[in-house]
Formats: sequence, C-alpha cells, structure tokens
Amino acid sequence: MKQIIYQGEPGCNSDVASNKFFPKNVKRTGVRTFKDIFEMVKTKKDAHGVVPVENSLTGSIHQNYDLLLEYDVWVIGAVNLRIEHNLLAPAATSLKSIKEVWSHPEALAQCRDFLSAHPEYKVVSVYDTAGAAKLVKEQKIKNVAIIAGPQVAKLYGFKKLKENIESHPDNFTRFLIISKDRKVYTGENARTMFVFGVKNEPGILFRCLSIFALRNIDLTKLESRAVVGRPYEYLFYIDFKGSMEDENCNHAVKTLKEVVTYFKLLGSYIIKDKK
Amino acid sequence: MKQIIYQGEPGCNSDVASNKFFPKNVKRTGVRTFKDIFEMVKTKKDAHGVVPVENSLTGSIHQNYDLLLEYDVWVIGAVNLRIEHNLLAPAATSLKSIKEVWSHPEALAQCRDFLSAHPEYKVVSVYDTAGAAKLVKEQKIKNVAIIAGPQVAKLYGFKKLKENIESHPDNFTRFLIISKDRKVYTGENARTMFVFGVKNEPGILFRCLSIFALRNIDLTKLESRAVVGRPYEYLFYIDFKGSMEDENCNHAVKTLKEVVTYFKLLGSYIIKDKK
Repeated sequence: MKQIIYQGEPGCNSDVASNKFFPKNVKRTGVRTFKDIFEMVKTKKDAHGVVPVENSLTGSIHQNYDLLLEYDVWVIGAVNLRIEHNLLAPAATSLKSIKEVWSHPEALAQCRDFLSAHPEYKVVSVYDTAGAAKLVKEQKIKNVAIIAGPQVAKLYGFKKLKENIESHPDNFTRFLIISKDRKVYTGENARTMFVFGVKNEPGILFRCLSIFALRNIDLTKLESRAVVGRPYEYLFYIDFKGSMEDENCNHAVKTLKEVVTYFKLLGSYIIKDKK
Repeated sequence: MKQIIYQGEPGCNSDVASNKFFPKNVKRTGVRTFKDIFEMVKTKKDAHGVVPVENSLTGSIHQNYDLLLEYDVWVIGAVNLRIEHNLLAPAATSLKSIKEVWSHPEALAQCRDFLSAHPEYKVVSVYDTAGAAKLVKEQKIKNVAIIAGPQVAKLYGFKKLKENIESHPDNFTRFLIISKDRKVYTGENARTMFVFGVKNEPGILFRCLSIFALRNIDLTKLESRAVVGRPYEYLFYIDFKGSMEDENCNHAVKTLKEVVTYFKLLGSYIIKDKK
C-alpha cells in the first residue's frame, strides 16, 4: 500500500491536500519537519510526500524549494487547496477566557490582521495547526485557543470561536506530491517544473526565456532568487504547461541546458485542481 | 529635521538599517505595524520610511509589496543588512532556566534550525525583536529569552546566551527607504523598481523582457506573483540597473507601458550597500 508522508498531525492542511490527491487506499503518516518528509520518501519503499511550496498571501516557502534541490525526488503532482482558518478551542473554554493563541507560524502569518487586532493574546508558534489542537487536548491546557481549519474542529471535538480569520479569503496553498520513483505525466493538466542557475549578466534571463517563447510554451511560474552564499548568481524556479514527454518541451529543456550553469529537472507532474 | 519611521523598537534591525542609510541628524520613530509606516509617510511632512521587503533565507515579504502598491510613495533608497541573531536574556536569567523564547516571526523563521533542536522552549511571536527585549525588561518577566541582534543586547543590557543562531550565515535583509516626495536618483548605484501586470498568455513575459534586452538593461530582480483574487492574472516585480533619468531606461519603461495591463513605477533609488 502507498504510504503518504506529510508534515503535521491528522487533520492538518497537508493531510487534507493528501486526501485530495490520494482519496483512498493509502496509509497516511504525519512527521515533525519538512526534512523528515524528504528523508522518509528517500528511504521508504512506495512512500510519497506532500510538501507545501507556495501560499497566495505569504509567498514561496523557500525551505521546501531548497529541500527539492538537496534531495533526489520527483515531483509527480500538485494540489491547490483553499485554506480556511478558524479560532478553535475545547468545548469548556469560553472566548472571554482566552489568553493565548497557538498555531503553525504560516497559519499565524495568514491571520496577521486578526492577531494585530487582538494584542491581548499571547501568540505561540507550534509545529502544526492540528498539532496545536492535539497538544491543547492531550495536556488539558486551559485559556488557549488554536488556529486551524474546520476539519480540525471536527476531528478534535473543538468548537469554533471565530470563523474565517485569514487576512484575505483568497488564501490558497500549493502542495507538491513527491516520489523517489520517476513518473512523467502527460496530457492537458501536465506541468513541468525545473530550476536553473545562471551567471548574472545582462539579458541572460531573456535569452533563456527565448527558448520557450520560440516554441510557444506557456510559463505558469517564474521566480528569481539570489543563490545563498553567492551574491552574483541567480536561481530561477520555472513551471510550464506541458510534459517532458512532449517533443517540443523536451527540445526546449535540452537547449536550455546548453546555456545555463546549473539545471535540475524536478518533474512532469499532474495538477489536480487547476485554480 | 527628517523623521525616519520604522516598524519596531529602538535597536531593531529596521532601526539599524535606517542608521546605515541616514547616519545622522534625523529623528527616528518606531511604530507598531508596517501599515503604520506608510500612513506616517503619507501624512507627516519630511517623513521617510524604512521597510523590509526581502530576506535571503525566507524570501519576499509580500505584505510590504502590497503596501507599496496601495500607497502613493516613492522608493528612494535601499540597504542590504547582514542579520545576526542571538539568544539574549536579562543578566539574572540563566540558560538553564529558560522556558520560553520570544521574537518577531521573521526572526523565529530565520532561526528555525535552532528552535527545532530545542523543542523544550515555548516559542512566542511578538511584534518586534527589540520589542521582545523591551517587554521582558519592563515587565520583569522571568524564564524568557529573546532572539535579536547584538545591538539589542547592548541597548537593553541583556547578556548573550547563544550567538549566531540564524540557520545560515548568509542571512541578509533588503530594506527600502520610502518617501512621499519624488526624488529620482541617477549614477552607477541607481536602481529602478516597478511592478507590472499582464494577462496570462504564452510568451507575454518574454515579450515584455525583450524591451529591456534590446536596450541592454540589466535586471537585478524578477518575481512573478498571481494576483490575489484573479487567478489568471500575474504581477511582476522588477528591479533594473539604471535610472528613469537615463534616456535608454526611460524609453524602455515607456514601451513597456504600451503593452501591459497594469504599471506602477516605484522609483529610481540609490543602493547604499551593493551586496
């Protein structure tokens, strides 16, 4: 049976994303850190990982892009998930008694406006949204609310003190599905993702992009990033519509590899929700 | 006298950045939120703001890019600051007695490895690094250490329990200097920054970049971002070497404006530290 590895506890958003991609017949395992996901995927047979890489409000999660470069894994899928945040607490806890709010730092960042409006709360960063519920429940901690999705309220029997406290309703996170085994998806919903590095010289990015423009390949993400420790070199993260199985795309990537200083193909994957 | 507005308390990294850009003869004022900086710059005469926009470990700070679009301010300068983090505490507090660690969420993110290695600490998110020191000192809070730069240790009389706990030594933050009054810098260290939007169609970015490649203009930052609430439209943040006073650059920007759906010039500014 396939084993799906995510960071967090049952009910966290990564777990929900894994359910969207693999709705049944899999074993799901939560781990403590993102690095643990990559280690498990590397060593366990038939293990797949679920990794958040980008949020519409807070941007790219660079730590996971770095891990994608460090580990030899393939991106085989992507899921976009609408992220809803609620202020939750055990049934016996009243809104008035709340002194602390616990959640994952990304969730806290996505609820910045709500938290700024409530300076009376002590804001505590924990390893996971659902993990916050687990800690509060197991240790019977009082006067603490947590921030998590509605599925966490159900799973842990918490009540909703406030709903939709995210700073903007257009709060989406993009999760990648990773695997040790290469699998190249094709078809209309296929995307290809890679990273390349260039020496910083005028027009270099333009020359690289000309390769894709010439072949009418549609880029869906482009981000430049200074290489940590090498201030005059840049990495670019790119996604395009198409698969490495398409001759046109394959030729484009081959040409690109001739002109760049670094290249890593991350995979041709399938996107389950096009938003 | 010029008034410099930054988010945080005296000794925070924004304050240090402001000292690098305006070493003397200014009045410095710390405010609670980034939005407060923009409000003060908009309404106060001769006020300049200091705004962090990018960290080498954690990426772009989208909230401040959004505020740059929302407010009519000009970017007139930039400073790159090496960010050092220490675990600090009042003189009477021993390392062994520490139960909680307080700091700004960005600082906590930059010290992720250290905090992961110490699950025994409760991690508390506060509005500022120096503000954490201020709270702990003023309220005589025990068993709490804070994460902040070495200048905070000096200013608040705290001792260093651990030095350089950032996850990577190449930890730099880029701060922008903003003003209500337009000022266009020129010369070797001038950079120009703008944001543009396009309908998502194949090759559109390539066509936009051709305008700059044709004129040999060197882009130093490029980031794409899906427009919140409009999934099929993209915004691009661009920086290039040169000034709007240079005829070549000015023509490039004029041409770009003909083909994009949205354009906002943020300014031609001077970069004080080229790293």
